Amino acid sequence: METKEVIYTNTEEIRKRGKKFENKTVSIRGWVWNKRSSGKIRFLIVRDGKGFIQCVIDNPLLYDIFDECTQESTCEVQGILKEDKRSPIGFEILTSNIKLIHKTINYPITPKEHGIDFLLDHRHLWIRSRKQFAILRIRHSVKNFIREYLNKEGFIEFDSPIFTPSACEGTTTLFEVDYFGDKMYLSQSGQLYQEAGALAFEKVYCFGPTFRAEKSKTRRHLIEFWMVEPEVAFATLDDIIQIAENMIFYVIQKVLESNSYELSILERNLDDLRKIVPPFYRITYTEAVELLKSKGFDFNFGDDFGATEETAISESFDKPVVITHYPKSIKPFYMKIDPENPNFVLNMDILAPEGYGEIVGGSQREDNYEILLQRMKEENIPLEEYNWYLDLRKYGSAVHSGFGLGIERFVAWICKLDHVREAIPFPRMLYRYKP
Amino acid sequence: METKEVIYTNTEEIRKRGKKFENKTVSIRGWVWNKRSSGKIRFLIVRDGKGFIQCVIDNPLLYDIFDECTQESTCEVQGILKEDKRSPIGFEILTSNIKLIHKTINYPITPKEHGIDFLLDHRHLWIRSRKQFAILRIRHSVKNFIREYLNKEGFIEFDSPIFTPSACEGTTTLFEVDYFGDKMYLSQSGQLYQEAGALAFEKVYCFGPTFRAEKSKTRRHLIEFWMVEPEVAFATLDDIIQIAENMIFYVIQKVLESNSYELSILERNLDDLRKIVPPFYRITYTEAVELLKSKGFDFNFGDDFGATEETAISESFDKPVVITHYPKSIKPFYMKIDPENPNFVLNMDILAPEGYGEIVGGSQREDNYEILLQRMKEENIPLEEYNWYLDLRKYGSAVHSGFGLGIERFVAWICKLDHVREAIPFPRMLYRYKP
Repeated sequence: METKEVIYTNTEEIRKRGKKFENKTVSIRGWVWNKRSSGKIRFLIVRDGKGFIQCVIDNPLLYDIFDECTQESTCEVQGILKEDKRSPIGFEILTSNIKLIHKTINYPITPKEHGIDFLLDHRHLWIRSRKQFAILRIRHSVKNFIREYLNKEGFIEFDSPIFTPSACEGTTTLFEVDYFGDKMYLSQSGQLYQEAGALAFEKVYCFGPTFRAEKSKTRRHLIEFWMVEPEVAFATLDDIIQIAENMIFYVIQKVLESNSYELSILERNLDDLRKIVPPFYRITYTEAVELLKSKGFDFNFGDDFGATEETAISESFDKPVVITHYPKSIKPFYMKIDPENPNFVLNMDILAPEGYGEIVGGSQREDNYEILLQRMKEENIPLEEYNWYLDLRKYGSAVHSGFGLGIERFVAWICKLDHVREAIPFPRMLYRYKP
Repeated sequence: METKEVIYTNTEEIRKRGKKFENKTVSIRGWVWNKRSSGKIRFLIVRDGKGFIQCVIDNPLLYDIFDECTQESTCEVQGILKEDKRSPIGFEILTSNIKLIHKTINYPITPKEHGIDFLLDHRHLWIRSRKQFAILRIRHSVKNFIREYLNKEGFIEFDSPIFTPSACEGTTTLFEVDYFGDKMYLSQSGQLYQEAGALAFEKVYCFGPTFRAEKSKTRRHLIEFWMVEPEVAFATLDDIIQIAENMIFYVIQKVLESNSYELSILERNLDDLRKIVPPFYRITYTEAVELLKSKGFDFNFGDDFGATEETAISESFDKPVVITHYPKSIKPFYMKIDPENPNFVLNMDILAPEGYGEIVGGSQREDNYEILLQRMKEENIPLEEYNWYLDLRKYGSAVHSGFGLGIERFVAWICKLDHVREAIPFPRMLYRYKP
């Protein structure tokens, strides 16, 4: 039995609880995504920001308005919700009425193929397409589930500042800002501030935009990207590796549970994601170098891994691999020196499988005042800028560790994208900063 | 009966589920916050980043280590958990063992009063104090509950970029950055990008740092502050006012539920917060001006309200007041003109009570291409920079509205602080950007 009452709903509700509305009159508001005709039947595919639904039109009185409904026109559609087993959302609408809210003329992104520069120039519209829709909804989930995991584990969000008077990872990749006559920089990492936070709140994280003025133009680099950086007092390198593993596991499980619709739009191989169960593989830097050599790489012990090496290493593993104990000479001053071998540090990078490279970098921090001071002097760090940081080892010092995870790389991996630029709403790259 | 097993826990668990551990041996790790002696009994008050607990020492064998435990020394304390009705967390520890992990000498922040400049210079340590602990944990809750509310309502987090090629609210308060030879600005608001997001995802928000190079040095201004900006397709001014009201209500209710410990440290009057129930008061700009005149203000109709006027208006109300329909001349081009009186716009500001002034600003947006173009021309907006924004009215335009809420002002109000500088971990102000 149909009721006369109209249920105002959306495709997410229909996807999740459509059975409740079956054979009832529903109304959705959205935009024409596509349309086609087949004999006497017309089909309008409508997107409402939460999904896509097919609206079937068999009433000739609606043909005129159907013709008016051009791609990306704003509209409201009413009709009976019918089960449709072939539909990705399980239902379609048998249309009884269409209201055209705003008619769109000559929408620039047509179903034909467009070049990447054209699409990036139209990013404000490109985000309406099916694939971008799916990616950016997964990005939302990833950010959300990261925080859910950390909150559950007793972390508090403790924002690091963006304006920083000093540089953490070298000044060549820093953006400079004139701050009322003084020189300031945009943060490349909130870590040092998180260390202050960990000694005040035990478990903290920051989660915000980060800036690197790197002249790299690769599929893994953005100038502006989002990073989550947890930092934990009383945690060793081992502890922090486990936190990172569990966080990655938790997020992927939750995305598998709650984003199956988006993952199916992306045609993502779910088995490759289901495999990502801790513990991940663990090797040392030294073992990674041996692995590279066994693969025929001409690699100098002591050098850092580049994208090619990372890809080669990660291809040997079907789930993420944690590489620990890098040479001290290629790592920053704040990493704790391995007490068993002072040429190495207690750090870790996590490489994602499927060639996505480094998604996590972290370490146990040097918590001894004298050793830290010594290292800072060796590396000509301007001590007066870091007095506050040294204070953390003078007053209530404790073993502590942390890591950073880059969101766009993580999302690119989960969605299996070719380039991180699609993993953020408005990418900023070397020659790309509009719209 | 005591058990020999040691339960490793923390003060948050003890506060919430301490009954489970009562009369059992617990162990907590943290830092000495304060200490005192009374006859043969010693008291160590330990903070562990999640709260404060009193550890009672009556065993003379522990006197020596008690003496070693200076303020902010890192330590581990074991003992029997005993109920203590006078304690804010309901329990104390009858100490059986103390391990000194790191001894702190001459901690700079002593229980005596310090000047604000000294405290801000030591912000990396000041965050360990009781009041700052309470404020920053409430900040965490506020951010969290805002997202919880928006997610529940079907919003997705859609990050606006920080690097923006054009200015939304005038260039005088923008920070400029040299972007590989081009001139870019730090975002003052993610709104325009959220509008693109709303037409793609229906309900979106961004939640990130925002930058205003304002030379104001007031208790309500920060150079770098966090703002949440929801934007909703198909929403009118009325709809968005309701969303803002409900969000504020939700967050305050949840903070009252889950942060009673922190609110009691701050000695916050809870009744003043419990009163904040929607609907809030609503008046128009015109009515607000009449109110000011009735209070003896010499105020020009058509001017914007400053801090003094905002305080005077909000003092007339015991919960927030929503002021709508400001003169078009003092508001930005993107606000929709009131169809009933074209000298006014469909906007709203929400003023918090207790003198906290504006915490929300929002509006219905101009969704008509021709009218928006006309207004942009009148105001000499560089059209070539905003073509993408105009596109949103050409392709699939829809009524839409949004608002921004400044987190530090909201937190300052909830915590009843004198100055927003304490509502963020590392405040950036006109003459303050360290540490």
